[in-house]
Amino acid sequence: MKGKRVRVEILCTGDEILTGKTVNTNYSHIARKLGEVGLDVAWGTTVGDDRASLLTAFRQAGERADAVIVNGGLGPTVDDLSQEVAAEACGVTLVLSDYWMQRMTESYARRGRVMPANNRKQAMLPEGAEFIDNPIGTACGFAVTIGKARFLFTPGVPREMRRMLDEQVIPRLLKLGGITGVTRLKRFHSFGIGESRADEMLAGIPGLAIDGEIKLGFQAHFPELETKLAARGATEAELDAKLAAIEAEVRRRLGNFVVAEDESSLERMVFERLKAGGHTLAIGETFTSGAIANRLAPLLGADTVFRRGVIAAEMTADGAADTLRAESGASHALVVLMQLDDGPDRPDFGATITVQIADENTAKGGGPVQRVARLVGGRDWVRTGAAELGLDCLRRHLMGLPVDERIDFERR
Amino acid sequence: MKGKRVRVEILCTGDEILTGKTVNTNYSHIARKLGEVGLDVAWGTTVGDDRASLLTAFRQAGERADAVIVNGGLGPTVDDLSQEVAAEACGVTLVLSDYWMQRMTESYARRGRVMPANNRKQAMLPEGAEFIDNPIGTACGFAVTIGKARFLFTPGVPREMRRMLDEQVIPRLLKLGGITGVTRLKRFHSFGIGESRADEMLAGIPGLAIDGEIKLGFQAHFPELETKLAARGATEAELDAKLAAIEAEVRRRLGNFVVAEDESSLERMVFERLKAGGHTLAIGETFTSGAIANRLAPLLGADTVFRRGVIAAEMTADGAADTLRAESGASHALVVLMQLDDGPDRPDFGATITVQIADENTAKGGGPVQRVARLVGGRDWVRTGAAELGLDCLRRHLMGLPVDERIDFERR
Repeated sequence: MKGKRVRVEILCTGDEILTGKTVNTNYSHIARKLGEVGLDVAWGTTVGDDRASLLTAFRQAGERADAVIVNGGLGPTVDDLSQEVAAEACGVTLVLSDYWMQRMTESYARRGRVMPANNRKQAMLPEGAEFIDNPIGTACGFAVTIGKARFLFTPGVPREMRRMLDEQVIPRLLKLGGITGVTRLKRFHSFGIGESRADEMLAGIPGLAIDGEIKLGFQAHFPELETKLAARGATEAELDAKLAAIEAEVRRRLGNFVVAEDESSLERMVFERLKAGGHTLAIGETFTSGAIANRLAPLLGADTVFRRGVIAAEMTADGAADTLRAESGASHALVVLMQLDDGPDRPDFGATITVQIADENTAKGGGPVQRVARLVGGRDWVRTGAAELGLDCLRRHLMGLPVDERIDFERR
Repeated sequence: MKGKRVRVEILCTGDEILTGKTVNTNYSHIARKLGEVGLDVAWGTTVGDDRASLLTAFRQAGERADAVIVNGGLGPTVDDLSQEVAAEACGVTLVLSDYWMQRMTESYARRGRVMPANNRKQAMLPEGAEFIDNPIGTACGFAVTIGKARFLFTPGVPREMRRMLDEQVIPRLLKLGGITGVTRLKRFHSFGIGESRADEMLAGIPGLAIDGEIKLGFQAHFPELETKLAARGATEAELDAKLAAIEAEVRRRLGNFVVAEDESSLERMVFERLKAGGHTLAIGETFTSGAIANRLAPLLGADTVFRRGVIAAEMTADGAADTLRAESGASHALVVLMQLDDGPDRPDFGATITVQIADENTAKGGGPVQRVARLVGGRDWVRTGAAELGLDCLRRHLMGLPVDERIDFERR
């Protein structure tokens, strides 16, 4: 199942990337995806739409790497040079792919259009190249060998690149490395614990020790932390069996801090809980200025649950959630108020955040659930944290979990 | 004033960048900043915290480039290797900078702390290296010559890198290229015109033709387009004189589509207009779900103007702005309603957007100002566009400009 180490490089082309006009998110996407299946990137290169640079970059990568993913330069215009320079580096000519010409022609015809003449360029591939399918665009991929490395060419359009990476490129790289079986990425989204604490909390989980089969990783994007289990197995069934106990253990150790898993999100969990309970929600905000409503209300179907959002420059905590609940007619009211520090923005600028939740039970009982926390880290940071804190308190309340568990970002 | 062409490369180091865990925004920031002062980047390299890769990367860049900006690897931990590998590539040893040791010690002392022992590593520089000051961090920069290129080392912390780039690195590169004088970047933010149309609208402006002195560029970040004039002159006074007429012409040609200039923004322009007129504002939103309030309300001082935001799952256009204005007590009401297409999200998913503005005059006159537009491009795209459209209509209304000028993103 485990194969030999494949040295992979990523080579990004195009003036927009080279000049910084476009942030190179294609690079980070490719590198991350490779890491998740156990393939490590060893080198990254960026060059412009320039023949000499491309040729040098191809040759140098061909000396260092086993496999090179080239991204960009497959378009129909004259500054798209990947096929031409690949052919030059291989010492072959470009030949027309009748198959791709036909596919492009048919694709245009289906939309009632005639294919522009310059698209023909996109069907010109280096002689002997392996064809790599692009099911959603006119830039097909291809593979050739330059030096000692296999070069896999992908288009710069992110949507097309991402699909081809998953379906075409990664399987070829795994095969190249003699790596068989299936892979899976399990993700836990948490709020309230930093990367180093999560790392400690998950230390020594049995099964995580098996080298290379299940890999633990973290990705912090404040205010959340993503904990990732990248796993590989011979079959899906074997993966299920191997992962089940480890997933349960991760869930148990991260505890109440896990706000969602995989494709879900904190706001989606809140929405689903509200929906399942037949509840409706009103949100009151001050300095978060709509940021909370803006996460929840756009969810597909949220209009069945989301009743009203109110953003006010000033709101007093006293009875705020009860009043909002009564005025809106919603079953639940979430209010997030902030008392900001004075003075200009700075790294230790902070705020005291008051979260209040009212529902039918709190109205009968001792008044709304309340959580007060102090966050610091500049205006934007504090605002983002407050929105998350408010939603997380509501999630915890709806799930019957304690709303006042201390979080790492909090100052006392 | 114009010097020789300097071939600049950017070399980014660090496992976080190499593995895609962190998106490489440092690269794009550096490349863009260089472009703005007329220095073009010729090559970008990314390597991990790996001695052999770093050494190879330094040597190859030293053969190709005139100047190399190295980013990252100056931290206090063992995986920060930039100084060590730089010394190895130069064939020298590392020597302690007493000056930097003292600066770090004092900096810790000012905050009442003792400097950790491992910070000493950050004062070890290759023998003979030129010191580059870091006024806000413990990672100082330095410059050495490897091969035929001057290497300038900067820390990976974005805040520190950005400041050192402006104050230390770019002046050195300009000097290296024999480029004298001062530079300036003039920016216009517009809404409603695409890059290619803006390019046409600005064709043939006299003065833009002077090669290399004033460079026109665009940066699209939907829904806005940024039009940039990067200019160079012998003195500030000369720049003023040269730019004045061209700026005025750009402003005239882009016309009402310019929403803000330089550091300002659409929301700030709206806020300032409201404030200057002694007005207050209430905002009503449906599917934009607080996105409009979320742009305006967080501005420093906005609490003097922003009265209330209401987000509702459903709201009818009929009298909406008048009602909101009356209920909130604000002098102005902005309502943005959306009628979404049916079905799942897709690239041609769209919405019909109704913008309504009420104020004292419309209440006396023929009812609120109204603008209806259809946007397509998927749920998120449409939502972002609607928020911008709403704010822009308010800006136009406050400035006495037509609110119904057709925009490029609009479908009829």
